[in-house]
Amino acid sequence: MTKLFRVNMTTKEAKIEELPQKYVGLAGRALTSSFVLDEVEPKCHPLGPNNKLIFAPGLLGGTNCANSGRLSVGSKSPLTGGIKESNSGGTAAQKLAKMGIAGVIVEGMPADDKFYVIKVTVDGAVLEEAPAEIMGKGNYEAIRVLSEKYGAKVGIMIIGPAGEMKLTSANISVKDPEGNIRSAGRGGLGAVMGSKKVKAIVIDDTGAKGVPIANPEAFKAAAKRFAKGLIEHPVTGQGLPGFGTNVLVNILNEAGGLPTKNFRAGRNEWANNISGETMSATIEARGGKVSHGCHAGCVIRCSQHYHDKEGKYLTSGFEYETIWALGANACINDLDVIAECDRLMDDIGVDSIETSVTIGVAMEAGIIPWGDATAAVDLVKQIGQGTPLGRIIGSGAAFTGQAFGVTRVPVVKKQAIPAYDPRAVKGVGLTYATTPMGADHTAGYAVATNILKVGGFVDPLEKGGQVELSRNLQIATAAVDSTGLCLFVAFCILDNADAFQAIIDMLNAQYSLALTADDVTELGKTVLRAERKFNELAGFTKADDRLPEFFKEECPPHNTTWDFTEEEVDEVFNF
Amino acid sequence: MTKLFRVNMTTKEAKIEELPQKYVGLAGRALTSSFVLDEVEPKCHPLGPNNKLIFAPGLLGGTNCANSGRLSVGSKSPLTGGIKESNSGGTAAQKLAKMGIAGVIVEGMPADDKFYVIKVTVDGAVLEEAPAEIMGKGNYEAIRVLSEKYGAKVGIMIIGPAGEMKLTSANISVKDPEGNIRSAGRGGLGAVMGSKKVKAIVIDDTGAKGVPIANPEAFKAAAKRFAKGLIEHPVTGQGLPGFGTNVLVNILNEAGGLPTKNFRAGRNEWANNISGETMSATIEARGGKVSHGCHAGCVIRCSQHYHDKEGKYLTSGFEYETIWALGANACINDLDVIAECDRLMDDIGVDSIETSVTIGVAMEAGIIPWGDATAAVDLVKQIGQGTPLGRIIGSGAAFTGQAFGVTRVPVVKKQAIPAYDPRAVKGVGLTYATTPMGADHTAGYAVATNILKVGGFVDPLEKGGQVELSRNLQIATAAVDSTGLCLFVAFCILDNADAFQAIIDMLNAQYSLALTADDVTELGKTVLRAERKFNELAGFTKADDRLPEFFKEECPPHNTTWDFTEEEVDEVFNF
Repeated sequence: MTKLFRVNMTTKEAKIEELPQKYVGLAGRALTSSFVLDEVEPKCHPLGPNNKLIFAPGLLGGTNCANSGRLSVGSKSPLTGGIKESNSGGTAAQKLAKMGIAGVIVEGMPADDKFYVIKVTVDGAVLEEAPAEIMGKGNYEAIRVLSEKYGAKVGIMIIGPAGEMKLTSANISVKDPEGNIRSAGRGGLGAVMGSKKVKAIVIDDTGAKGVPIANPEAFKAAAKRFAKGLIEHPVTGQGLPGFGTNVLVNILNEAGGLPTKNFRAGRNEWANNISGETMSATIEARGGKVSHGCHAGCVIRCSQHYHDKEGKYLTSGFEYETIWALGANACINDLDVIAECDRLMDDIGVDSIETSVTIGVAMEAGIIPWGDATAAVDLVKQIGQGTPLGRIIGSGAAFTGQAFGVTRVPVVKKQAIPAYDPRAVKGVGLTYATTPMGADHTAGYAVATNILKVGGFVDPLEKGGQVELSRNLQIATAAVDSTGLCLFVAFCILDNADAFQAIIDMLNAQYSLALTADDVTELGKTVLRAERKFNELAGFTKADDRLPEFFKEECPPHNTTWDFTEEEVDEVFNF
Repeated sequence: MTKLFRVNMTTKEAKIEELPQKYVGLAGRALTSSFVLDEVEPKCHPLGPNNKLIFAPGLLGGTNCANSGRLSVGSKSPLTGGIKESNSGGTAAQKLAKMGIAGVIVEGMPADDKFYVIKVTVDGAVLEEAPAEIMGKGNYEAIRVLSEKYGAKVGIMIIGPAGEMKLTSANISVKDPEGNIRSAGRGGLGAVMGSKKVKAIVIDDTGAKGVPIANPEAFKAAAKRFAKGLIEHPVTGQGLPGFGTNVLVNILNEAGGLPTKNFRAGRNEWANNISGETMSATIEARGGKVSHGCHAGCVIRCSQHYHDKEGKYLTSGFEYETIWALGANACINDLDVIAECDRLMDDIGVDSIETSVTIGVAMEAGIIPWGDATAAVDLVKQIGQGTPLGRIIGSGAAFTGQAFGVTRVPVVKKQAIPAYDPRAVKGVGLTYATTPMGADHTAGYAVATNILKVGGFVDPLEKGGQVELSRNLQIATAAVDSTGLCLFVAFCILDNADAFQAIIDMLNAQYSLALTADDVTELGKTVLRAERKFNELAGFTKADDRLPEFFKEECPPHNTTWDFTEEEVDEVFNF
């Protein structure tokens, strides 16, 4: 991966650049965040011509390493106003890596009103006017049309109607191996793509030479150890393949950390109706797929095909956080309706976490009643229709709170807080507060050690050990996100030192290096420093590293509060 | 003024406190900003229970000094997220001062859903349930009902439907001598009042002892010199009484600084149709009042009664900035429709600057066509109706820009930029950028010296001298806003040293002090330091002291840009 494909939407010129020396050894999140810090004016309008968008596979992308097909998308977020790396599965990253492309950059903004498709081949990128028939259409249909036009095997990164409208919860969807939808969900990067009038990026990897491996035998041996580790770990080998990420509903409910009714409680009576166990049983009964990978080479296979009552495919990538937000937090006690919303959100192209949490805020505002499934579906549909109410909901939780004067709005840096109550899972609250990404569980998943007892145990209800935990996980995550590995490999490597070593061994074998664990840590720190620096230049301060005031209220059943002092919170980033 | 009336809406308790020693000598903006810094947690939600609202007359409030009846309202702004002093005429400030009340504080938040009226008498404040018949009603009708209930002479501070809905452009309206409406317009403080479920504050000053004056003869003599200065100055004695603030339309159009079509140009062909000259001729022809004071003792009398075609009162306080925003910036070439919108905005209770600039943003978004008067009136009406589109518009320009993906949004710190293009009036751009209030011409009105040649002359198209000008005007303004004097006295005192000395002489005579001009400057600096400190604690940085990117575009007719470096901008606050 030695090329940058740079597409200027102002001039409509595309060129191929050598990866600058300063970026050699960086990929995935390390590359996207360095690039955004270097090339994006921190105070620019995120939807203006001075923002840029970069798509990058990780260091191990395109290899045979298990679970190495994740894509990093970087930009200044129109949702948070800060730096963003949004991460997705699908087939794009592996194709880019095999084509030797370290990153595809989209910059500038056309003066005209047309939307474009960027077609990426080994020869370069070309701009074509987007087919009229896909404009305003849902992602499922648009991906079908583009796959017909450009070939069934092309990779596709695309925005839905929400991205066309530049709504700040718009995501970027990535075609998965079956032509279904994975998402670079968080931070509204679909709006950035929409502002640049890029409807889709189509990747035709015909003629790709594949990824060179300096020491293929060593790589193969390490890859085998790594895959074995994943398969043998109870979370990545059993829990996730068996029940998807939604295995967490019953676990978090039991732990008292399943936020219910817009974070009023951590436990509810109906959780099992929406649990992973119920979901998998439903899928089996209807002939769906309980386990499925979002990209080739995935051995965890936490995705699934969820079918409707008629046995027809409805959605995949049906995640715990979405199911939680609609099921527990918005009190919609019906997995089928939640699945319908999930499909709609994927189709319209909005972050399913942001949008589902926003529906809870709309219920808080009295716009629709708690638990009203029909009304929730209608709200999601209105986003796609671009009604004024749809635009409010599609602009996210903080925005909707402001529109309706609601103060109980679970956001940090204007991004919706996900599925783990920080009063019952205290470590993850530190991650929400301090990550440069805005509230994001994946930025430092303390739930692993607080609740799942992976990587040791830190009592979720106590403060002790949490600062170090969140810090170390954020550093590790920034490194993992740079490899192209799925973050879920962390469950395994936190418990299995050899599996962790296997990753280092693969990197060394591929690039002919002699990295140690310390280098990996240093990479993570470097990424986080770059991200913090960007945010500082954009105007962020410690005042932005805070949870909403209402987390000082007690949360049943444990009746705990989120009680870190500001000084303790500020200790997370002490490097 | 030695009392603070403190009303806790959580406990429904009201008490009278002695003004703490640290606040003795502070009033108006000096008191409100000190209080907000001391008592409001900077990171609190502005619409949550931890924000507070304070109403304060100025140091000269309640005296016979000309133009001393202005009211300061302080709080954390839900529009900007920073500190706010919003300033209004009307009868409230003089009544409070005469009752010996330095400030009325509203804090906490009721658990129930009822709205309240706070009745303030010399004996204290009491809470009464708001009459059902005024809930959701416009301010004109509500003021009429409350005046009937509580007596024609009571002072009233009230929120309209927008404040009840907690929309972030909601203002606080203040009854004027004729029962019409003046506004503490900027920063959304009506939403704070709404969040505390206070529909109105009624001030019955029966039994008020008046303001003690230590040396009445000296005060009288100084007051006479001061009033004479105001009457003799061409701006305060002729321009403003003759044509209102709207005298500025032709002046700014001539100067090329009248922002037109959402700040695309500084001059247009139809300006005279909406000018002060046209307005005054229309008023005279229809039997309205060309000149009128917003509070007793005003000798400038820049307000007016604008009548409709049938000769019926339509609006007053019909300001240049509102007329500019709808007339030039939104291209509505019809003074009658603009007056209708002005009345509607007053009645619904939204800031007419924020809302009118927002209508330009809605036109930019293509929601309604440029210059479409009927559609603009409909948008304003929708605010009062609380439709989703109305809530978007009623949440201000930055919010509306986000809802519709518009990047050409004239705001600083999320507050709409008013009626002077910073590329043609460069000094005022520094004020927009740096004032802690968010874009606000009144915070340091460099237009005076750039365009009106008051207080000397600094070339509006050049950078030289502007940093000092904006700094000195911001300091002077913070002091003037603390006296209760109308800011327009500045036109006179910038040119007339004796009139300025007369203010100091009045303060010394009233309070038995020996203040000098240096003390006045120091007061201004102290106020600004407190405000900057609050904003810093709330998370503001220099990155917030910036104009939108599009002011780097050339602005016809002068084809100048706003070209200050960041270092130059940051020099404004060098104290």
